Amino acid sequence: MEAMRYSIMAGGKRVRPILLMAGAEAVGGHADRLLPAACALECLHTYSLIHDDLPAMDDDDLRRGRATCHKVYGEAIAILAGDGLLNYSFELLSSMEMREAVDPALLNETISIFGRAAGVFGMIGGQTADILFEGKPIDAETLAFIHSHKTGALLAVSVEMGAVLGNADPEQRQALKEFGKALGLTFQIVDDILDIVGDEKIIGKPIGSDTKNKKATYPALFGLEAARSKAEDLLDQALAALSDFDHKADPLRAIARYVVERNR
Amino acid sequence: MEAMRYSIMAGGKRVRPILLMAGAEAVGGHADRLLPAACALECLHTYSLIHDDLPAMDDDDLRRGRATCHKVYGEAIAILAGDGLLNYSFELLSSMEMREAVDPALLNETISIFGRAAGVFGMIGGQTADILFEGKPIDAETLAFIHSHKTGALLAVSVEMGAVLGNADPEQRQALKEFGKALGLTFQIVDDILDIVGDEKIIGKPIGSDTKNKKATYPALFGLEAARSKAEDLLDQALAALSDFDHKADPLRAIARYVVERNR
Repeated sequence: MEAMRYSIMAGGKRVRPILLMAGAEAVGGHADRLLPAACALECLHTYSLIHDDLPAMDDDDLRRGRATCHKVYGEAIAILAGDGLLNYSFELLSSMEMREAVDPALLNETISIFGRAAGVFGMIGGQTADILFEGKPIDAETLAFIHSHKTGALLAVSVEMGAVLGNADPEQRQALKEFGKALGLTFQIVDDILDIVGDEKIIGKPIGSDTKNKKATYPALFGLEAARSKAEDLLDQALAALSDFDHKADPLRAIARYVVERNR
Repeated sequence: MEAMRYSIMAGGKRVRPILLMAGAEAVGGHADRLLPAACALECLHTYSLIHDDLPAMDDDDLRRGRATCHKVYGEAIAILAGDGLLNYSFELLSSMEMREAVDPALLNETISIFGRAAGVFGMIGGQTADILFEGKPIDAETLAFIHSHKTGALLAVSVEMGAVLGNADPEQRQALKEFGKALGLTFQIVDDILDIVGDEKIIGKPIGSDTKNKKATYPALFGLEAARSKAEDLLDQALAALSDFDHKADPLRAIARYVVERNR
């Protein structure tokens, strides 16, 4: 638990939990009652970072400005801390607090879409493809698969979970899903750009690691300028998906702009 | 997915899924509608074996009579296959099939007790203690903690999940919980005995690995004969917990006897 806490309290941007809460608010839901679900997203995200950083995976020493989990606690405990956080995300989602806050059928559905986005048909599938294609030439289609699964799926489902838990109607849910999808892809492209032009001190991890690990990225495939303009296009798409929403969706709009303009 | 399938189809005893179904049958539930939940237990168990076998953990080469997952697919894919199976267990529990078969509030409660038994307060906590105490002298209390968490928690919750999903009344649920607890401890003690006196060809993994890894076990602490008599006592306890059940609990009784008499 010390190792779990070490990694989760290292100070990430908390983009996924904020997206869930902003998604719920956009449809008039009570975001403050959904904190366990929001935390579940950060637990899940943090486990994926701990396991990705392991020597057998990306072998990274620095994350969020600190030594990575296995550097401090050893590989065995880092694997277990990751497993613990992955498991704990489902414990939070099915906690008494959530069961009292939300209609049981909606909660079942939320757990289901979260599980699918996190698992082999989502994030884990994307990470696996990323590992399998390391150092190999890949085409735009494979890159899109890796992006949309490795990072995109969890970011998109964060917004969708907010919509479901906030009791969105089907049209609202569909619009928020499209917003999340565009945002997820934007996020990954900007991440890849920052790995080239970012400031190591601000990002909290070494830049150039994608190049070092021969990772396929959007800027590597299409160039930095094309990547920047793609991110701008996707931001427009994301904002367009919110066109039927009132001021309650302003936090989502602000997050989308932040995702493109951020420097970490 | 190939690596996940390789490990899960290696032919385990399927004790946990069978316990869930027998638990549901004992209270008159429809076990055949609960197959996804039963499979979730085997996915969870298999992930724990894959991660336990990793070089950073117990570093085992053989499991269920086959080369371990990381020996065949490498460490990165073995970690991901384990993550995938852990995650998939929750996907199965929250699948459409389960949501159509069971009352949504009962399903959320099932996911909750499963998550707790599998996580840092259950199995992962037990495995962590096991790793941390490797090669160190431990007392009977610590050994009981490791046993009841590492193996006992998941076996016990298998029966309890069957009870909840089979719509047990509170007394039935309590009795089945006690049965599961006694059975879980029996299972681990017999496992430890088999690691000393078992036949490698039948067990499908090398015997003597606990001694090699300086693991604390019941026979190591109290001797082989005391371990055997403890297992018999626990079997009696488990059967006594079922005294108010009719013939529908006979499969549970048979499994309990099998757990003590098995040679693998």
